[in-house]
Amino acid sequence: MPDTTHTAVTTAVELLGESTSKTNGTLRSTPKQQTLKPSEPAELGSGKPKKKYRHVAALHWKNQPSCISHEAAVSPSFLGFRNLLVLVVIVMNLRLVVENFMKYGVLICISCHDVRRQDVVLGALLYALIPIHLLAAYIIEVVAAQQARGAIGRRQRSDAGVRTPENAKDRREFNATWTYIAVAHTINASLCLGITNVVVYFYIHHPGIGTLCELHAIIVWLKNCSYAFTNRDLRHAMLHPTSPNLLPEMYLACPYPQNITFQNLAYFWWAPTLVYQPVYPRTSHIRWIFVMKRTLEVIGLSVFIWLTSAQYASPLLRNSLDKMAILDLPSILERLMKLSTISLVIWLAGFFALFQSFMNALAEITRFGDRNFYGDWWNSTDLQTYWSTWNKPVYHFMRRHIFSPLVGRGWGPQTASAMVFVFSGFLHELAVGVPTHNILGVAFFGMVVQLPLIMITRPLTRIEGITGKVIGNCIFWISFCLVGQPLAALLYFFAWQAKYGSVSRTYHA
Amino acid sequence: MPDTTHTAVTTAVELLGESTSKTNGTLRSTPKQQTLKPSEPAELGSGKPKKKYRHVAALHWKNQPSCISHEAAVSPSFLGFRNLLVLVVIVMNLRLVVENFMKYGVLICISCHDVRRQDVVLGALLYALIPIHLLAAYIIEVVAAQQARGAIGRRQRSDAGVRTPENAKDRREFNATWTYIAVAHTINASLCLGITNVVVYFYIHHPGIGTLCELHAIIVWLKNCSYAFTNRDLRHAMLHPTSPNLLPEMYLACPYPQNITFQNLAYFWWAPTLVYQPVYPRTSHIRWIFVMKRTLEVIGLSVFIWLTSAQYASPLLRNSLDKMAILDLPSILERLMKLSTISLVIWLAGFFALFQSFMNALAEITRFGDRNFYGDWWNSTDLQTYWSTWNKPVYHFMRRHIFSPLVGRGWGPQTASAMVFVFSGFLHELAVGVPTHNILGVAFFGMVVQLPLIMITRPLTRIEGITGKVIGNCIFWISFCLVGQPLAALLYFFAWQAKYGSVSRTYHA
Repeated sequence: MPDTTHTAVTTAVELLGESTSKTNGTLRSTPKQQTLKPSEPAELGSGKPKKKYRHVAALHWKNQPSCISHEAAVSPSFLGFRNLLVLVVIVMNLRLVVENFMKYGVLICISCHDVRRQDVVLGALLYALIPIHLLAAYIIEVVAAQQARGAIGRRQRSDAGVRTPENAKDRREFNATWTYIAVAHTINASLCLGITNVVVYFYIHHPGIGTLCELHAIIVWLKNCSYAFTNRDLRHAMLHPTSPNLLPEMYLACPYPQNITFQNLAYFWWAPTLVYQPVYPRTSHIRWIFVMKRTLEVIGLSVFIWLTSAQYASPLLRNSLDKMAILDLPSILERLMKLSTISLVIWLAGFFALFQSFMNALAEITRFGDRNFYGDWWNSTDLQTYWSTWNKPVYHFMRRHIFSPLVGRGWGPQTASAMVFVFSGFLHELAVGVPTHNILGVAFFGMVVQLPLIMITRPLTRIEGITGKVIGNCIFWISFCLVGQPLAALLYFFAWQAKYGSVSRTYHA
Repeated sequence: MPDTTHTAVTTAVELLGESTSKTNGTLRSTPKQQTLKPSEPAELGSGKPKKKYRHVAALHWKNQPSCISHEAAVSPSFLGFRNLLVLVVIVMNLRLVVENFMKYGVLICISCHDVRRQDVVLGALLYALIPIHLLAAYIIEVVAAQQARGAIGRRQRSDAGVRTPENAKDRREFNATWTYIAVAHTINASLCLGITNVVVYFYIHHPGIGTLCELHAIIVWLKNCSYAFTNRDLRHAMLHPTSPNLLPEMYLACPYPQNITFQNLAYFWWAPTLVYQPVYPRTSHIRWIFVMKRTLEVIGLSVFIWLTSAQYASPLLRNSLDKMAILDLPSILERLMKLSTISLVIWLAGFFALFQSFMNALAEITRFGDRNFYGDWWNSTDLQTYWSTWNKPVYHFMRRHIFSPLVGRGWGPQTASAMVFVFSGFLHELAVGVPTHNILGVAFFGMVVQLPLIMITRPLTRIEGITGKVIGNCIFWISFCLVGQPLAALLYFFAWQAKYGSVSRTYHA
């Protein structure tokens, strides 16, 4: 049977032409549809003889498959379903908001926070005293710089201007001095971390205040280390000059030991970086409007995080306690899944508040030019990419002061990388375990378990096409945001409650 | 201050080069990042003099904005968040599955369905008898065709082969005959719908059986109408032949009155269309594998819909009854939002089962060539597009037998379109109100309210760029799938329960 005939086509086109103005409203019309309606809308009621018999139009005039069949030449766009997905997420969460309100009413309560006086005083004192260790590091470096200047002077006097290459005596001399300085730095830095740990663990009950102090101590400790290591290399380079110059050329603007000034250290103290450089790229002026906007973002997001935690996360955590106690696995799973969305939202808000808003505001105030605080980690297709892009300040520290030196000493990159994660796990456990007074090892384990996960996800990035990348990206989201974080939160909260009961007065009733 | 220097760049590139293999694993790396890491990974531990001082590398060597800042030259891809969105929807729903199971256990129960014997017998009888009206329509058309053949014969004898143009007498004659035939068809079609309505409304208690009968009656009624209208025009065209031929050329394969055969009608009866054509595009053979696959899809999706309704939708509907009774608006809103996701899933599964799987299977068995049963309605940017693409069989009927003839009589397209929606509302109310024994008018209203919604969404498609289209698409999803459907389901369910109590034995306890 002939598939189509001219008249049938014309009639169908004319009839369907009337609907062209509606049908081309789809987000993307398939070429198949376009062949059906190529003409402009025919004027209606024009009384053309062709239109006399309106009940006979051949609407079925050719063989064609359904548009989502495999036989269809062009598969249609599914963009509308993406919009639906976004709407469904909004509606589902809006429902949970309504449900939460009907169940609990408003849980937000400023006066309910049970903050002890001792916590506030001790916390403030600790917070203010931690930077003293940076001052101590500065004094150590001043002494070291004087020694180095002395050595240069002695050498210049004895050699009368003739430069000799580095010899065994030189190295012995440098190493002996470095040993004393290194010991001084180690004692200073260890005290910084040690004192904070002891005070927070034993004397600061409130986990929030404890976390602030602990994080501050860790940051100052890392800055301390970077300051010491960098100046060691700068000093060595000054004592043993080579041609070509082995130092970054931008450092020529402030060569060692000119960088050992209090002002230079103070800038490093406030600059949004953990990596010490004598010279940083700087902007020409402070845009105060920019600072204001970022500050408002920090405030807005902090309030948002507080409201979300108080209204949604905390009743959820509380409700999971009895299920955790009797190890009711389906219920724990259900709690974990409910918690995962909330912790994800809090995490994303926190990331934005800290790495985009706060760090940019701080960088603007300090005229710090390099705002590369994070990459597009949300697209990570393997976990290594995530860990090297979400927190660039820490990543930079780890590469410059742990990974790179270890590799320089002959370690394999895998082993050096493992070392970085073990060290990072140690810091994470300090940051979480000490303020919650529960060294569970979960945070440590969470970091160390990244190593096998990295091994698993690495081959996925090598798969041709997008499939492997999407799988890798999903593994990243699931392992990190949908399982790892809420599970860790649940465990530390459970351990806290088991040890102390609630921190808030509302729940004592 | 100079922004970058050669050495700094080289050092940074070398250092960061080590991580190139990891960082290029992102879904799309920004050009900014690529300028940072242009080189192949430098071999580690190669002992190059450049690498001697590993703690001094200038990681901050140029001014650059954060990648999601407005100042960034290229904004990064956010593809990873799309993956996250899908995962969040999965996790949120999985949680609801677990929660539902913990609350209710397994609610699926075949023996619990309280189907009365009278319902089954009456329903089966009714279902079997409805096609008799098609047979009656056939007999009416046979008589009409005989009359037409007689008229042609008489005219040929009297005019002795001389063709005259249509005159007043001719038209009067045709119209008089058409009046009798039209009355006969009207009585027959009205009986088809009327008897079913009375039996279903008064004698078939179970809404499922009632809906099946009612839908069958509506389909047969529409086929009846199309058969009568089309043959009227074909007959007129035969009695008043013109040049050029005003009928679709493909009909020449089976000119009137050769199409008035039982076989031709029987094909129309089973064909997946509501629009009668003497000739349809046909495929050459039946692919039984295709039929089998589609049938399995229908079975699988039907089971899925049944399980979902029993396990998720029905307890939800039941739980909303007391809130509906006291008009507790926040609770009703919460129920509505929870219901919307489930009804959406059921609706999408039902759409696929009916329009893709069932209709394709039926088309394959009947070798019906035109499988254009639906367009890509999910991308609809206005509601008119949705209504003209989601259900092509009904849309074709409405255009050919209501919209087009009304426009031909001088109605404006808007008024004709309004008429179509009013008629459609009437049919929807029959399909929903009669089997549930509650003519609430909600289904009718739901269709009629589309007219203002179409007016609102039409201007959106004319907005430049994608924004208007996305808004239009979201309005479509919200108005139709997230509000309209679940609200209607809730109202009819409430009315049913208010009148009869539960249909299932499980809930009597």
